[in-house]
Amino acid sequence: MSLTLTPLQNFPLIKPGDDLAGMILNTLKLPSLQLETGDILVLTQKIVSKAEGRLVHLTTVTPSPAALELATKTGKDPRLAELILRESNAVLRARPGSVIVEHRLGFVCANAGIDQSNVDENGATSSEWVLLLPEDPDKSAAQVRAKLEATTGKRIGVMIIDSHGRAWRIGTVGTAIGLSGLPGIVDLRGTTDLSGYTLKITVVGAADELAAAASLLMGQAAEGTPVVHVRGFPYPLREGSLKELLRPKDQDMFR
Amino acid sequence: MSLTLTPLQNFPLIKPGDDLAGMILNTLKLPSLQLETGDILVLTQKIVSKAEGRLVHLTTVTPSPAALELATKTGKDPRLAELILRESNAVLRARPGSVIVEHRLGFVCANAGIDQSNVDENGATSSEWVLLLPEDPDKSAAQVRAKLEATTGKRIGVMIIDSHGRAWRIGTVGTAIGLSGLPGIVDLRGTTDLSGYTLKITVVGAADELAAAASLLMGQAAEGTPVVHVRGFPYPLREGSLKELLRPKDQDMFR
Repeated sequence: MSLTLTPLQNFPLIKPGDDLAGMILNTLKLPSLQLETGDILVLTQKIVSKAEGRLVHLTTVTPSPAALELATKTGKDPRLAELILRESNAVLRARPGSVIVEHRLGFVCANAGIDQSNVDENGATSSEWVLLLPEDPDKSAAQVRAKLEATTGKRIGVMIIDSHGRAWRIGTVGTAIGLSGLPGIVDLRGTTDLSGYTLKITVVGAADELAAAASLLMGQAAEGTPVVHVRGFPYPLREGSLKELLRPKDQDMFR
Repeated sequence: MSLTLTPLQNFPLIKPGDDLAGMILNTLKLPSLQLETGDILVLTQKIVSKAEGRLVHLTTVTPSPAALELATKTGKDPRLAELILRESNAVLRARPGSVIVEHRLGFVCANAGIDQSNVDENGATSSEWVLLLPEDPDKSAAQVRAKLEATTGKRIGVMIIDSHGRAWRIGTVGTAIGLSGLPGIVDLRGTTDLSGYTLKITVVGAADELAAAASLLMGQAAEGTPVVHVRGFPYPLREGSLKELLRPKDQDMFR
């Protein structure tokens, strides 16, 4: 049984208010890509944020004293620093060029996941536009899923991913920031391997493994292939959420 | 263009001295799985370590004073603590139940990647056997690759992966520990997206993204599907190494 990931080709550019589920259905034209029960669709954060109108023009942002301090420390635009603080529960590290935070959604990431978009909602160039993460990515995933399931009658999963850096390794990897209808983690405790011995690896970050896989197909043209269709995910689908993937603070050794 | 990952079925159990490349060639029986130029084979660390005779019986290990101290601090078997120290450059964190180290190979992981194997080289049960990571996984990957390329005449990549925990997220994900013939990271700086704007995401941990993808297909039966065949990796193959993926200490904010 293979795992097959296929980017949806010719996915249109997204504007605020766009109906992502409808656009996905329109793009699923190839017969091989008709949705089947068990399939998963992986969406890059960028199109979800754009559809939800999360673009902010920096001229509308007034930096607080804390943002001015963060900007001085890191060399970031004070208005961007303000947005980073608004989108975060806590700043973990701030050094020239780097701000690592606990995002209000609970995960640790750089710059609160805020992208400098370079392009406004109508496609005009401006380095003053930035794009925040979706308000509630689990909910966004659930909404897209509900519409796709209602239209197709199939039981599917939907996941929203972003590219995250890692503490000790170079390069970003696709990481789950919201999901609906698939497991965040899979608990293999008690499972036995071929020899009949209990597996040592206990809990697998299955959604993050799939996020990394899908990200491979989004890497080369960020807006060209923002949706990846997955067939052959090896674990049973179930209701799931981002929360499963977040290490509780009292288990955190590296904060 | 799809990315397709297929576990090799019925891969035999591995003993020290086994010829992994030969066994892979024997297992590649399905016509759809004939190796083609551009394909990648992903191997779990476990079979490489076993083939290379990296099983150690704990009764052969004498703990040093430092190991006794680490064992007291963490509750680990002092002989296992000794092996963890021998396999590591530095201990980053040691708490009851957890030892996070910089492995001698340069990456950060738990327990120096040492697995309690529960089974000896002849398949007999013993909780005293442990399995160390390969001596030099880049070299192991290169050796498997050289034989596969010589036999098939195709240009391929070979990667060895392990399951690593993450600082702030629950669940392990497949992570590259050795590679040959594929990029560790892919530098997208200067690349433009569909709208013609320069991408903000600069360096992608492509090998780790692929490692996570392949790991999905190894998770359920650790020794059942230890080799995954990959077709459709979206980046050009080139010579690569683990070192590309390791963040230099002077950029490490979380040690």
